[in-house]
Amino acid sequence: MNKTRMEAFSDGVIAVIITIMVLEIKPPHGTTLHDLRPLLPVFFSYVMSFVYVGIYWNNHHHLLHATQHVTGSVLWANLHLLFWLSLTPFATDWMGENHFAPRTVALYGTVLLLAAVAYTILTKTLIAHHGMNSTLAESIGSDRKGKFSLGVYLVAVLLSFRMPRTACALYALVAIMWLIPDPRIEKKFINESHSQ
Amino acid sequence: MNKTRMEAFSDGVIAVIITIMVLEIKPPHGTTLHDLRPLLPVFFSYVMSFVYVGIYWNNHHHLLHATQHVTGSVLWANLHLLFWLSLTPFATDWMGENHFAPRTVALYGTVLLLAAVAYTILTKTLIAHHGMNSTLAESIGSDRKGKFSLGVYLVAVLLSFRMPRTACALYALVAIMWLIPDPRIEKKFINESHSQ
Amino acid sequence: MNKTRMEAFSDGVIAVIITIMVLEIKPPHGTTLHDLRPLLPVFFSYVMSFVYVGIYWNNHHHLLHATQHVTGSVLWANLHLLFWLSLTPFATDWMGENHFAPRTVALYGTVLLLAAVAYTILTKTLIAHHGMNSTLAESIGSDRKGKFSLGVYLVAVLLSFRMPRTACALYALVAIMWLIPDPRIEKKFINESHSQ
Amino acid sequence: MNKTRMEAFSDGVIAVIITIMVLEIKPPHGTTLHDLRPLLPVFFSYVMSFVYVGIYWNNHHHLLHATQHVTGSVLWANLHLLFWLSLTPFATDWMGENHFAPRTVALYGTVLLLAAVAYTILTKTLIAHHGMNSTLAESIGSDRKGKFSLGVYLVAVLLSFRMPRTACALYALVAIMWLIPDPRIEKKFINESHSQ
Repeated sequence: MNKTRMEAFSDGVIAVIITIMVLEIKPPHGTTLHDLRPLLPVFFSYVMSFVYVGIYWNNHHHLLHATQHVTGSVLWANLHLLFWLSLTPFATDWMGENHFAPRTVALYGTVLLLAAVAYTILTKTLIAHHGMNSTLAESIGSDRKGKFSLGVYLVAVLLSFRMPRTACALYALVAIMWLIPDPRIEKKFINESHSQ
Repeated sequence: MNKTRMEAFSDGVIAVIITIMVLEIKPPHGTTLHDLRPLLPVFFSYVMSFVYVGIYWNNHHHLLHATQHVTGSVLWANLHLLFWLSLTPFATDWMGENHFAPRTVALYGTVLLLAAVAYTILTKTLIAHHGMNSTLAESIGSDRKGKFSLGVYLVAVLLSFRMPRTACALYALVAIMWLIPDPRIEKKFINESHSQ
Repeated sequence: MNKTRMEAFSDGVIAVIITIMVLEIKPPHGTTLHDLRPLLPVFFSYVMSFVYVGIYWNNHHHLLHATQHVTGSVLWANLHLLFWLSLTPFATDWMGENHFAPRTVALYGTVLLLAAVAYTILTKTLIAHHGMNSTLAESIGSDRKGKFSLGVYLVAVLLSFRMPRTACALYALVAIMWLIPDPRIEKKFINESHSQ
Repeated sequence: MNKTRMEAFSDGVIAVIITIMVLEIKPPHGTTLHDLRPLLPVFFSYVMSFVYVGIYWNNHHHLLHATQHVTGSVLWANLHLLFWLSLTPFATDWMGENHFAPRTVALYGTVLLLAAVAYTILTKTLIAHHGMNSTLAESIGSDRKGKFSLGVYLVAVLLSFRMPRTACALYALVAIMWLIPDPRIEKKFINESHSQ
């Protein structure tokens, strides 16, 4: 089965998710800069979610780049990932509108955690299909970055009930870790495309 | 005529349908987990519709994979299917917000039924164009699964006025039936791609 | 310049337009079928706009199928068409919510008229670029169907201030005319693809 | 790495941005043309934003047409551009609903300015990767049009606090400058495609 349409559908869903979040930033009735202030937490939560959904798209792009073919199980593992990502606008909105209140930060982290679990399942499904010696399996390796993220999300969710700010700092930390490019992976891809 | 653009347009429409449904889950004003409780039926109806729209995308993907070319009638049969799917967010919202009240469950089932009828029409239009001996006709076969679903939807809609919960259980049953991969179809596709 | 990306972008915009219109059908608070009744005019206007946007997608698909390359002017003629189509959800909503009141029907028709004018401009821009002897120019021909539609829209808009129902019937008439497949065009495409 | 999926994702995001803006034009309750009047500033701001987002899509199309491959940094520079563009619906809505009040015009210009800065960064990232002697670097040249736009945006934002109308006129001026096709660039592309 061809991977092109699964990529196109995922691109569509992620494009809608990342864009409809902005509908939650409702313009204020006043026209002074002061009127924009109550929107600041909503804006911060929007920025964080935009970066997170952007990271997922980026990683999804890399993951499928190394994929040759997809199966029925891969299609469902992919839809499972899209399901948790589709809850991001809701979690973002609840957290932003309530100024990062403890339980809202916990829910946001839970959505991040479940999306990360879904991404791990998608990766494992793809590796199971391609074999442990495939380029895909090699480029994922031991997936230390993925496992570390899962651990941090779990700790952050537990912390958020008492220390929501620390939890948010941890979410931001994981995002920054993924933003910094991993030279080994890019090198791997460049080597491959040269040897093709 | 090329099928690529019909696939791309369908992907776009289905991606928007599956994602805008989340806009109906409005974040509560309170910040306790208790405040999230009234959202549970809305969330359940969202999950069911996400799975259903996902199944349609999946089946559409398989159906068009086996298709070689499309005609004007195919384009319209496809738009007809997208029309009924586009009513899913409305039916989902009405059912979720009213805690699965009888008539809302009946309308939801009617939308499922009409989408299934539209899917059957699309399949028949494609087979009429490709011929009864085509790979497409063979891979569809007698379409027992499709006919069984139509029957269950009809029974469930009639039941829903008296027993909305049983009707919902039947909708879920059909969804689970489609979620379980059909080994014969996947085998068929693998054999074909090997023999190409 | 490649036409693929212009097609992909148009597909995306039209997919969003056709789907967000359903957000305007707000579920009622009651749960009886009687509560759904006030939604009937909104639903009818949705059906009409879905069919119209579907026709535009369909014709756009055929038009670009016969196109070899695009220029900067073609990109802008295409965006101009998408602009008028993007106003469809607004015009549909105003007309549906006000039970097809005279001025709302006139505005709806004006949007249809301007979209048709934009489509004519796009066609002419493409023909100017491909030459009068191109396959594109031949398959468009004298464009009697397009000119007739423009005339009917104009008459319908003028009528709508006094006879909104007749105007709606005329809009529906034009839609049905486009829905019925034109055997000559399909034949033309089939012949071409055979001779390639 | 392949540029196709980055194009497809950008097309999706820009298609959603350009289309959801129309959701902000809420149909009035009255049915006379007089009732539409308060919507005029909202409509004007919609037209301006539609043209601006259209220009970005157009330029993005040209820029990536001349691009051979993309890297991780290019993906992020592209997401950075999409982030500022995604704020367009918010800025448009605030400005339109408040009849082009000084601070709303300043915010709108700031979003335009930051999107233009992000576009410049994307261009520079692509040139850094392709080399100063690449077709891409040549077709961009000294980017006088881009630098001039940045300057005008900056002046217009500063002016907007006192003279919001003049600021709007300047935004419109830059848009018109980009709408007029640049014969040199088109010629460049045509020459290239002939020499391929």
